[in-house]
Amino acid sequence: MKFGGTSVADLTRIRHVAEHVAREVREGNEVAVVVSAMAGETNRLVALCREAAPLHDAREYDAVVSSGENVTSGLLAIVLQSMGIEARSWQGWQLAMRTNAAHGAARIDAIDCATLTERLAQGQVAVVAGFQGLSPQNRITTLGRGGSDTTAVALAAALGADRCDIYTDVDGVYTTDPRIVKTARRLPRISHEEMLEMASLGAKVLHVRSVELAMLYDVPLMVRSTFTDPAKAPPGTLITGEDIQMEQEAVTSIAYARDEAQVTLRDVPDAPGVAYRVFGPLSAAHINVDMIVQNISDDGTATDITFTVPEADYDRAMAVIESQREEIRFGKLIGEKDVVKVSVIGVGMRSHAGVAATAFKALGERGINIRAITTSEIKISVLIDSATTELAVRTLHSAYKLDRVPAEG
Amino acid sequence: MKFGGTSVADLTRIRHVAEHVAREVREGNEVAVVVSAMAGETNRLVALCREAAPLHDAREYDAVVSSGENVTSGLLAIVLQSMGIEARSWQGWQLAMRTNAAHGAARIDAIDCATLTERLAQGQVAVVAGFQGLSPQNRITTLGRGGSDTTAVALAAALGADRCDIYTDVDGVYTTDPRIVKTARRLPRISHEEMLEMASLGAKVLHVRSVELAMLYDVPLMVRSTFTDPAKAPPGTLITGEDIQMEQEAVTSIAYARDEAQVTLRDVPDAPGVAYRVFGPLSAAHINVDMIVQNISDDGTATDITFTVPEADYDRAMAVIESQREEIRFGKLIGEKDVVKVSVIGVGMRSHAGVAATAFKALGERGINIRAITTSEIKISVLIDSATTELAVRTLHSAYKLDRVPAEG
Repeated sequence: MKFGGTSVADLTRIRHVAEHVAREVREGNEVAVVVSAMAGETNRLVALCREAAPLHDAREYDAVVSSGENVTSGLLAIVLQSMGIEARSWQGWQLAMRTNAAHGAARIDAIDCATLTERLAQGQVAVVAGFQGLSPQNRITTLGRGGSDTTAVALAAALGADRCDIYTDVDGVYTTDPRIVKTARRLPRISHEEMLEMASLGAKVLHVRSVELAMLYDVPLMVRSTFTDPAKAPPGTLITGEDIQMEQEAVTSIAYARDEAQVTLRDVPDAPGVAYRVFGPLSAAHINVDMIVQNISDDGTATDITFTVPEADYDRAMAVIESQREEIRFGKLIGEKDVVKVSVIGVGMRSHAGVAATAFKALGERGINIRAITTSEIKISVLIDSATTELAVRTLHSAYKLDRVPAEG
Repeated sequence: MKFGGTSVADLTRIRHVAEHVAREVREGNEVAVVVSAMAGETNRLVALCREAAPLHDAREYDAVVSSGENVTSGLLAIVLQSMGIEARSWQGWQLAMRTNAAHGAARIDAIDCATLTERLAQGQVAVVAGFQGLSPQNRITTLGRGGSDTTAVALAAALGADRCDIYTDVDGVYTTDPRIVKTARRLPRISHEEMLEMASLGAKVLHVRSVELAMLYDVPLMVRSTFTDPAKAPPGTLITGEDIQMEQEAVTSIAYARDEAQVTLRDVPDAPGVAYRVFGPLSAAHINVDMIVQNISDDGTATDITFTVPEADYDRAMAVIESQREEIRFGKLIGEKDVVKVSVIGVGMRSHAGVAATAFKALGERGINIRAITTSEIKISVLIDSATTELAVRTLHSAYKLDRVPAEG
């Protein structure tokens, strides 16, 4: 069970979390709980480090920032004990949660959980401080923002847990953003891969790395709500390996990402090595390029290249390309920040023909102009003007009949 | 160098502390720094534990409360690094600072400081989180309130440091409380034993256990002020083993403790075992008894017993004695909370006759009634009405000529 910062924001909420844990214990489960810092606490500690020095030692930053999770894990253990549930807290170095030495963004290498397994078998609840680990140099590391999800999944994998429940402020994963589409439905079940596409596309339910890890170690994840009656198991969305699913829908969800920006180079000489001359310098500047579209030129002499970058990197990307004008020899450089990427996601796409055609037809009928298209095995993404975001999401949600509850498999 | 909570209350003050450290480094010293939590932080964490459960697991309490020192040690390391001084933080488990398992009031058993010594020799400043240690069970312990002083002295002893400087909000130890006696002087030097008497008697400069430890391992302590120009070494009071002192004054200081309460049993049958019947039940109730005075009865049949207890335990002490009325067979039980213990302290007392007589004469001339007297080798304590505290302290300060600067040895 993993509880984030808003779920443990104060002692009233920590008591509520303890009730969720108590329910699982009553049902006969062995329970390990991973907790984040109380809401706002990590930000406070990060601000202190920045105030201490703008360029601070990442090892010291980790030593400072990790203390928020230490507090929460101890407090939850105390509350559980006061309810008559045997419990103890575990800090990253105590387990130990072994990571590499990439302070601030460490990767988990191994978890020594022999003692933990023994205690769980004895009926003791383990309350583990999320987000932190121990480097080979015996220093405290942190896993980066959202790292407590990763802690939970890694621990579930190491313990061979039946399930990893991520408690959050939403009750599951939806067919699309319910703020845009009223008829959006909670999905009872999706695959790791679909969740991964949705996580990277801006559905902020789960941290991307935690989903990758769950897929790699085949850990079933359950996204469910903290803020329900803790006496009853809240419903949620189960995220599992594909093979477990009974009936695959062609499309399960529509996601969108607003923080994209488009860069287009017109009239680029269509010669070998041109892609490297464009994307080499961007990579050197640590700018992540997402969609890349290169049109084949009619006469084979010139081409157009369009790509997207995170909106935050847009100005830098434009400057990098401009500085390569001589080398790339493009005709015209065009940029656009008011764009959005809308994606249609579904594992079933692989075996269902015509899924892409449905999207293009539906968007075309609504007069929505598509700036660029990319596809993968389980998703189709289109870049459109941000003014048409809501219309596009609603149109696609209807086009794939996502508002209808599917018949029982 | 040890800095308490008010010295590291915010980043402006932490920067100021770093300047003190920088001065010592510039002067060619190898420096280990022990820090407390930022002022108010430990109280906040203690309050959270209490809110979690009034009767909380001491192990979890320690895990939560120790996080305040982790934050400060990391922040000071960052600030030192930003000034070009090589530094790193050390948490209790990293050193390791090995303690027993008495959570909340652990005793230091040993400090593994081979690595630390190596780093210090390389010129790296060690910033150690005070107040915390590691139990034999690999759990975090805390040393109890004021424990960072103890961390500093224990570390100084383990490292074989030349001196342990305790930076605080006063510039040294005074002949008495300067708020009561304007002419009180800062003592340039006193003995560990004198400091121990003063510490236990309410001069809140140093934690009692830290002075005991300094005496045991013969660590010279220096009490000095944080809030001075950090470019210059602040003056202070050096607390050393007796033998180092040049010329011993008979009396060095006058201390007082307001938090005492008096209990008197009149007409107690003067028979063997009576003391046990009085003090046995108090000890069983964990009530600390300080002064004990038993008058010899004229006829050998009945006696009066007077003792003092901490004011906070007064009501419980009275109830305990009342419950033993049958067993003790006292005539009358009298209590008084408005009392104060004033003490005259000085190592030189041992070799100077008539020190006690001076006190009794001076107090008598001022009409101050003495309720009880106890003496040790290096102190004389009198219990008086609290209304006469200031008068008594001033009278004794003058009687022993403490306002005069002694001639250079």
